[in-house]
Amino acid sequence: MEIKVVRKVLDVNNTMAEQNRKLFADNKVFVLNVMSSPGSGKTTMLGKTISRLMPEVRTAVIVGDVSTTNDADRLAKTGAPVVQVNTDAFGGDCHLAAHVIAKAAESFDLEDVDLLIVENVGNLVCPAEFDIGEDVKVVVLSVTEGEDKPLKYPLMFRVCDAAILNKIDLLPYLEYNKNEAVQNISQIHPGIPVFEISARTDDGLEPWVTWLTEKVNHKLKP
Amino acid sequence: MEIKVVRKVLDVNNTMAEQNRKLFADNKVFVLNVMSSPGSGKTTMLGKTISRLMPEVRTAVIVGDVSTTNDADRLAKTGAPVVQVNTDAFGGDCHLAAHVIAKAAESFDLEDVDLLIVENVGNLVCPAEFDIGEDVKVVVLSVTEGEDKPLKYPLMFRVCDAAILNKIDLLPYLEYNKNEAVQNISQIHPGIPVFEISARTDDGLEPWVTWLTEKVNHKLKP
Repeated sequence: MEIKVVRKVLDVNNTMAEQNRKLFADNKVFVLNVMSSPGSGKTTMLGKTISRLMPEVRTAVIVGDVSTTNDADRLAKTGAPVVQVNTDAFGGDCHLAAHVIAKAAESFDLEDVDLLIVENVGNLVCPAEFDIGEDVKVVVLSVTEGEDKPLKYPLMFRVCDAAILNKIDLLPYLEYNKNEAVQNISQIHPGIPVFEISARTDDGLEPWVTWLTEKVNHKLKP
Repeated sequence: MEIKVVRKVLDVNNTMAEQNRKLFADNKVFVLNVMSSPGSGKTTMLGKTISRLMPEVRTAVIVGDVSTTNDADRLAKTGAPVVQVNTDAFGGDCHLAAHVIAKAAESFDLEDVDLLIVENVGNLVCPAEFDIGEDVKVVVLSVTEGEDKPLKYPLMFRVCDAAILNKIDLLPYLEYNKNEAVQNISQIHPGIPVFEISARTDDGLEPWVTWLTEKVNHKLKP
């Protein structure tokens, strides 16, 4: 029974996601959906990314959390317009749904936005199932989470277009086999680019920012 | 609409959870539900905990993952009987539901079990909403996840009876304010015990194991 109702929710979501996709295409807005476990370092990584993109790439952000505006407050410091969605207003949802993105996007003048970044709720399961009308999905994985997460949460790594391995500055202090982690990602999603970064030290940020910028430019000036 | 269907799922789950609770009470089985983000170190922590409890406290384990039997394989080394539930058989569920626990518990001779540990799917949101008929809920938080997680995922910390702050061996390498984390936990759930441990180095394990043993004994020999 549970599966049936979940399917119904997903069908409604997919319809709404297609409407979002059309809206974003009409306004030439590239949409990036960033997902991860809680505490992977998404917000720090996005703050550093946005600082490198702006002002050439005009960036706006929708931040999803169950509660608090902590991440929005942090990202607002980049100068990008930020909208916070607290899902506890929607029953404590564990993901951002397409209708929530549609509502949040009304806060921006989309004609002035090249890139809309959606920082999803920290969760490696549910957000992977909800299309929000994005152009690319990216998963952030902290090296402190262990090597096996791609195998344990395969849908997330299968649907994403790139993976970011964050907090590599901590590798000397962990019993972590980075090659095994990268192999596990490739096993689930052959050919997916994996960016090894430290959002704290800025190590490895450039290749990721370059990849993203090329994707954005390809949509805006195809 | 989404909220309504979720409520219906939760009502069905609560009924089933009460049936589980009666079954476990009839068989004098204490049930511990352990929840956390992916990669918090739950499995390592539980392996060390079970090794300290056995054979005095006869322990069995149900491990929930979306995919793989990695954690079950690791915990089976303790000698405790282990059942793995892969939720991708149930549409990739992001939590263990009460009916899944009822089914998995059939694998054990409950008369020979004092403590049933349920290692839930790695997720700080959804498992908090699903009663499985447990006696206590415990949340594990890694210090690598940042100080603000109790504020961002308040339901999880509100419903839990204890919190474990894991990986404290990494504190020297992080910009982490442990007091702030503990204060955030206490703000959401005043009076909740917080155990600071390193499952890797065994630091701080004893107070946690003592707390758990007393809870189990209180149910078995009230």
